[in-house]
Amino acid sequence: MPDRIYTSEVGQHIGERVQVAGWLHTLRRLGGINFLVLRDVRGTVQIVLDTPEALQALAGLSPETVLSVEGDAVAEAQAPGGIEIRNPAFTVLSPVRDPLPLTLNKPVMKLNLPVFLDHAVVGLRHPSKRALFRLSAGVMGGFRATLNQAGFTEIQTPKLVESATEGGANVFAVQYFDRKAYLAQSPQFYKQIMVGIFERVFEVGPVFRAEPHDTVRHINEYVSLDAEIGFIRDHHDVMAILTRVIWGVLEHLQTAYAPEMALLKVKLPVIPEEIPNIYFPEAQELILALHGEDARGEPDLAPQHERWLGEWAKEKHGSDFLFVTGYPMSKRPFYTHPNPADPRYSNSFDLLFRGTELVTGGQRLHLYQDYLDAAARAGYKDLKAFETYFETFKYGMPPHGGFAIGLERFIMQLLGLDNIRLATLFPRDLTRLAP
Amino acid sequence: MPDRIYTSEVGQHIGERVQVAGWLHTLRRLGGINFLVLRDVRGTVQIVLDTPEALQALAGLSPETVLSVEGDAVAEAQAPGGIEIRNPAFTVLSPVRDPLPLTLNKPVMKLNLPVFLDHAVVGLRHPSKRALFRLSAGVMGGFRATLNQAGFTEIQTPKLVESATEGGANVFAVQYFDRKAYLAQSPQFYKQIMVGIFERVFEVGPVFRAEPHDTVRHINEYVSLDAEIGFIRDHHDVMAILTRVIWGVLEHLQTAYAPEMALLKVKLPVIPEEIPNIYFPEAQELILALHGEDARGEPDLAPQHERWLGEWAKEKHGSDFLFVTGYPMSKRPFYTHPNPADPRYSNSFDLLFRGTELVTGGQRLHLYQDYLDAAARAGYKDLKAFETYFETFKYGMPPHGGFAIGLERFIMQLLGLDNIRLATLFPRDLTRLAP
Repeated sequence: MPDRIYTSEVGQHIGERVQVAGWLHTLRRLGGINFLVLRDVRGTVQIVLDTPEALQALAGLSPETVLSVEGDAVAEAQAPGGIEIRNPAFTVLSPVRDPLPLTLNKPVMKLNLPVFLDHAVVGLRHPSKRALFRLSAGVMGGFRATLNQAGFTEIQTPKLVESATEGGANVFAVQYFDRKAYLAQSPQFYKQIMVGIFERVFEVGPVFRAEPHDTVRHINEYVSLDAEIGFIRDHHDVMAILTRVIWGVLEHLQTAYAPEMALLKVKLPVIPEEIPNIYFPEAQELILALHGEDARGEPDLAPQHERWLGEWAKEKHGSDFLFVTGYPMSKRPFYTHPNPADPRYSNSFDLLFRGTELVTGGQRLHLYQDYLDAAARAGYKDLKAFETYFETFKYGMPPHGGFAIGLERFIMQLLGLDNIRLATLFPRDLTRLAP
Repeated sequence: MPDRIYTSEVGQHIGERVQVAGWLHTLRRLGGINFLVLRDVRGTVQIVLDTPEALQALAGLSPETVLSVEGDAVAEAQAPGGIEIRNPAFTVLSPVRDPLPLTLNKPVMKLNLPVFLDHAVVGLRHPSKRALFRLSAGVMGGFRATLNQAGFTEIQTPKLVESATEGGANVFAVQYFDRKAYLAQSPQFYKQIMVGIFERVFEVGPVFRAEPHDTVRHINEYVSLDAEIGFIRDHHDVMAILTRVIWGVLEHLQTAYAPEMALLKVKLPVIPEEIPNIYFPEAQELILALHGEDARGEPDLAPQHERWLGEWAKEKHGSDFLFVTGYPMSKRPFYTHPNPADPRYSNSFDLLFRGTELVTGGQRLHLYQDYLDAAARAGYKDLKAFETYFETFKYGMPPHGGFAIGLERFIMQLLGLDNIRLATLFPRDLTRLAP
């Protein structure tokens, strides 16, 4: 028996006997002839059921039955892709036991979200879903490749932590032997610590947020793409690295994931060599000037403000991306570095993608005394929880900063999805812990 | 001011004014001349303190002070690496506040493990520690590169799960809003499910084991390198992929991490083109023949047995690696595929590295009814916990199998460390949740 080849490779074996294997995608009758379409990870191939034996072998088999098929690879102008397999002999590797909970063999998957999520173990097999999560892999791959190229070192930091430090109440508690532990909301403290070892670090891993929000943009466990960079001048050095990352990821998707990008009809974002940026108070002035809404003095941007700024960046700079810099210190975490020229504002930024926040980042404090002062200002009474984090800054830490990208949000915004759950293999939310 | 360059790049700028930045590694006096050694992520450079001003600028500065140094790059045969910097001007970027808890500027770090672990945020800066965790990054990189090359897709699966399925008691419970969740002990179920989508998948991520063991080989959170492969004939196909992975990782370390391998004096394992393998009952016969110990009928190998088999593999086959195949079904998880020729034994394997288990893997069941039967045999009464996992197998799953490598164990065995905590940035054990 010949070795199994992928459906995408059949065209290279015209005139040969080949073996393919995969899922029975669909059976159809066309012009009096019966066809089987077999699906594997690379695509589909049409198989002609040209004998009564072939038809007989498939009698009663449901879609999703796993088959191995030996047959003759033939060039046939009428067939999809110009190739088909004839004179097939079938082996059933794995039968289907129950009626399918959803339909996998229509080009567009009409779906009811809860039903899809309940049956994701099979629903994800739809070619459009498979392509989407291939792109997730591509985003991770492009992120790592760009940063490795730029001298970063990958780290893996603990997800079980002793204290609920970073965001107060929104942490999940874990029973850790005879005491409590918490799930890390981000690798923030650890990636900063690791700047002292590797100068430039990144991590790709899960983060956990116990926020009781039931929205289309929130899930309680997601994948964070984190980077942190030492020896910066200020947050603009961080933004320059982030710009390279966005470029690198999009380039990687275009080159290594072209079939998936095509299948999903992904509209490539427009990203200039240098992403435009606007200082927070100037963004508020702009909103007043363009839309008559006076938000000056507000410490943050509303979603509608972000959308307006996104439109402006597109019109004025031809860019789908916009940096907003200098958010007020009052709205940023305590480790944020202030703007030395005006300490009401911070050396931080958000990156808006098509008018929605995609990335948050900035320069961090790096001096021990600044941490003590910032913790006091933030009203932290008991510094025990920060003890080992703060210890880092006692022993010489360079100016540094970094950013975090939510993998699922990136995919959601790139594909224009209306629910982040569609960008998550097995989402976790207020009500969902399975599959 | 010139742009900052790495210490490793100074040699390319002889005769120029350069800027370097990093940590004050050590100050020393040699033949009446004072030197400063500056450390950055790439190495160290010697800086000659040839003026009273230069000496004055450093008066009272402790090791680990972060400095930026501008000076003349000079070739000097007497200097380490043949290069030094003269006429320096210093800027202190970040001072040191307290006496260092451990010494970072001796070539070998003499350490007391608890003190080192307590102060890991600074102890990890030692060049030998930095090199070690660079190798961890290299293992992850080599693992992914090899599998991407072989048509695998990267996945990220949930760490919060609804049921404590896989290993009974050894799971951590999480307070998930108003109910209980658990931390995943492995991505086992999810990676199998994802074979239905991508055929070949891998995941690099944290796993959580609530085992109350206090040994040099156990930690409670570690990084698992998981792979799962569809359309296999049996576990030998999995072993072939794993062999490629081990090759790929070691090759990647040799090419991309040569300085770290040299610094740590890593003894490269001997790995033949095909790793030898021995069937479980034959391994027991061999132990009886060679060492007179009769373990026939025992369902598992004792550590001493593994060591003897490791010695035998080295002597007989010149290999640091040995596959032991066919472990008794009674000792393998319920989803393990039996050996069709003798169902007392399984289509599973362990990979021994220098006489210690490094990887576990095997073929899994792929038919729905087999899962029901196996769960019944295992005594699982309530199948609710397995509902979505088992659902996968109702809808056509190909024969498949996979393996998991513990990242920290790999590093521990490669480097001959005597405690797995030394291969973990911030270990979690019975008593330790910080830093």
